[in-house]
Amino acid sequence: MSRNLFEDLAQQTAGELGAIRAAGSRAGAGAVEPTDVVASILLGFVSEPGDGVLGRLVGSLGVRSVATGLLSGWPAREFADRTADASGRSDPPSTRELAAGIARWRPRLDRDAFVRSIAQAARVRARLLLPGDADWPGGVDDLGVHAPLALWVRGRSSALAETPSMALVGARAASGYGEHVAVEASAGLVDRGFAIVSGGAYGIDGTAHRSALAANGTTIAFLAGGVDRFYPAGHEALLGRIATTGAVVSELACGAAPTRWRFLQRNRLIAAAAAATVVLEAGVRSGSLNTAGHAAALGRPLGAVPGPVTSPSSAGCHRLLREFDAVCVTDAAQMAELVAFGAEEDGDDDARSRPGAATRTLEVLTPEEHRVLDVLGIRRARTVRELVPATGMTAGDVLGALGALDATGLAARSGDGWVRRRPE
Amino acid sequence: MSRNLFEDLAQQTAGELGAIRAAGSRAGAGAVEPTDVVASILLGFVSEPGDGVLGRLVGSLGVRSVATGLLSGWPAREFADRTADASGRSDPPSTRELAAGIARWRPRLDRDAFVRSIAQAARVRARLLLPGDADWPGGVDDLGVHAPLALWVRGRSSALAETPSMALVGARAASGYGEHVAVEASAGLVDRGFAIVSGGAYGIDGTAHRSALAANGTTIAFLAGGVDRFYPAGHEALLGRIATTGAVVSELACGAAPTRWRFLQRNRLIAAAAAATVVLEAGVRSGSLNTAGHAAALGRPLGAVPGPVTSPSSAGCHRLLREFDAVCVTDAAQMAELVAFGAEEDGDDDARSRPGAATRTLEVLTPEEHRVLDVLGIRRARTVRELVPATGMTAGDVLGALGALDATGLAARSGDGWVRRRPE
Repeated sequence: MSRNLFEDLAQQTAGELGAIRAAGSRAGAGAVEPTDVVASILLGFVSEPGDGVLGRLVGSLGVRSVATGLLSGWPAREFADRTADASGRSDPPSTRELAAGIARWRPRLDRDAFVRSIAQAARVRARLLLPGDADWPGGVDDLGVHAPLALWVRGRSSALAETPSMALVGARAASGYGEHVAVEASAGLVDRGFAIVSGGAYGIDGTAHRSALAANGTTIAFLAGGVDRFYPAGHEALLGRIATTGAVVSELACGAAPTRWRFLQRNRLIAAAAAATVVLEAGVRSGSLNTAGHAAALGRPLGAVPGPVTSPSSAGCHRLLREFDAVCVTDAAQMAELVAFGAEEDGDDDARSRPGAATRTLEVLTPEEHRVLDVLGIRRARTVRELVPATGMTAGDVLGALGALDATGLAARSGDGWVRRRPE
Repeated sequence: MSRNLFEDLAQQTAGELGAIRAAGSRAGAGAVEPTDVVASILLGFVSEPGDGVLGRLVGSLGVRSVATGLLSGWPAREFADRTADASGRSDPPSTRELAAGIARWRPRLDRDAFVRSIAQAARVRARLLLPGDADWPGGVDDLGVHAPLALWVRGRSSALAETPSMALVGARAASGYGEHVAVEASAGLVDRGFAIVSGGAYGIDGTAHRSALAANGTTIAFLAGGVDRFYPAGHEALLGRIATTGAVVSELACGAAPTRWRFLQRNRLIAAAAAATVVLEAGVRSGSLNTAGHAAALGRPLGAVPGPVTSPSSAGCHRLLREFDAVCVTDAAQMAELVAFGAEEDGDDDARSRPGAATRTLEVLTPEEHRVLDVLGIRRARTVRELVPATGMTAGDVLGALGALDATGLAARSGDGWVRRRPE
């Protein structure tokens, strides 16, 4: 596609874009050019969430130039030359990083799929939020080069701008105790004026959302796939209810399915969008610990609710208290205090505000390892040759990731290929 | 009594002292003079535990001079002149402090009671440990001017020298959960070579002692009264069993009854004697939080076991985690790590090793207020005139303490006198 094709794309989707960028975003002098809107959507469409190379490239050249270059088939060298010209921007990606990025992004430049995705967004009445919009959740900008370029919203996008907000997360496999804690915490925080942010999952997340709705509060669910398809399927009705008064949000375009990587990146949005994060109940392998790691890495206040030491369902919370300096919170009042607490500590160099300190250990896999793990099957072995297009990674990077996954017991050789192994 | 009377006293009790200072203490060149032994016992006999004025006076003049002066009726001025001569010692008490101290100590100089107390110690086969003895628990010296001058031991005094040791404490009103935690923690620590230190009370303390005995471990109970009378009465058999393999210890002379003040001071010995302290289960008003406060003030590692946030029996532990930077510990292995953990942090200026930071809030009453509270009744009002001899305090100090107790709702006027009020 050439530059003309890109403008064609903007024209072709103009009708849908009008609906998608409706009232609630910006008007008049602050309005975003339609080509910039299309560019933002397109870059999100071709990349995986949290792609730091793309974030740095956009930081140097802006969304329109990057989308134009990608559509025009610029080689890595041309991107590199242009970032060198764009003086004043720091840390542009290297030619090698750009080449790897282009190898990931270009195979996804599917014009028809893109047009279908936008049409689908319009059909489900999704709205597009862009950085700088009145309803844009400013907290996600703290993700820097890993921040989303756009967010898709179903429901009331202004819910995202409500403050204060609290992320309440926890395990899918919740106990009766955990559900009791989630009901009380969520309702109590709503009573204190908080919007409740969570991941829409079974167990603790769903209970937190439901309790917020029951208390007539605002609640926001971040999804790991497109907002056109509510996931998990069993929460379709719940997510529909959330969208009637609050918002269901994703950085992934309509049509995108959730993957392991996307769940982990969705967690970073939950942590970044909320003023503080509380893990209500979590076993040691709960994905909510990943959200907690993101919150800690971002310097957001992090709370954990203790439980019986005899309950494996609370072991992850106890680990957060013990090893990650989470604050012990036992009721909504103490959770609400976290926000003030975090503000007071601003600039303090304690573990809570030391970016990266906590995630380094909680997040044992690299992005590459996660991507390979996403496409490995448990039964059918896949060869490296198959894994390269499936992951959008080079053969060398796939092999490196497989070696690390093998060492940690998450993947194993099987015949000519590789299979995933369940962690014990 | 004159100096001669003092030496008479040493002669009169020489038989008992021989038994009391038996093998296990020191022999030969390191032996303590009988008069020093009597002096140490005597000063403990006339004072309340943790008397800092006495500690500073002994630090300046030594036990024998202080005992001699007290028996000889020296006025405060004479003590002050002698401490001024004893150059090189820092922070001797002022003449005013000495006068108040003498007013506390002299009324208790009862020669017959003293002789009876020593006879009773010999009868129950109690042993006297003095600072510097092989079995003296060196940790208590960290209490500085509040350190005990002597310890009475029934059982195997060498138990006090065993390392590592762990204080396991908690509420008398233990839940089934708390008792389960105590059983596992104590046995698990015994398996890891720890001696278990506690307070011999009902509930968590008793369970920790019993579990240590069942695991064939060493366990030590610190009492708030003389070791001749095991308290609480319902634990007479348990304390007897503790004394057969471990030790039952007190700084109070035989015949001394436990009081509220003595319980609090006993707690400081538990915290100081052990390498680390863990609160296993405690409500917000549990005395074990006082032990935790002492541990924190001493810079000893402090652990707390979490429990359900729905259980008031765990609320004190959660408060320690939340406000006092206690380490979240969920099993014996993590408790054992506290000791290494504490050693690593040595010299670190975090809250755990900031003396006084924690006790300031946990310990809301001054020593004077505690003493007055100890002698106030709930029904019969006592006048200030009655309270002066009962407390060994001046009328001015009694009035000051009553004012503070009134303000905090712990005491109230009643007719011409004062009564104690139960905290709600």
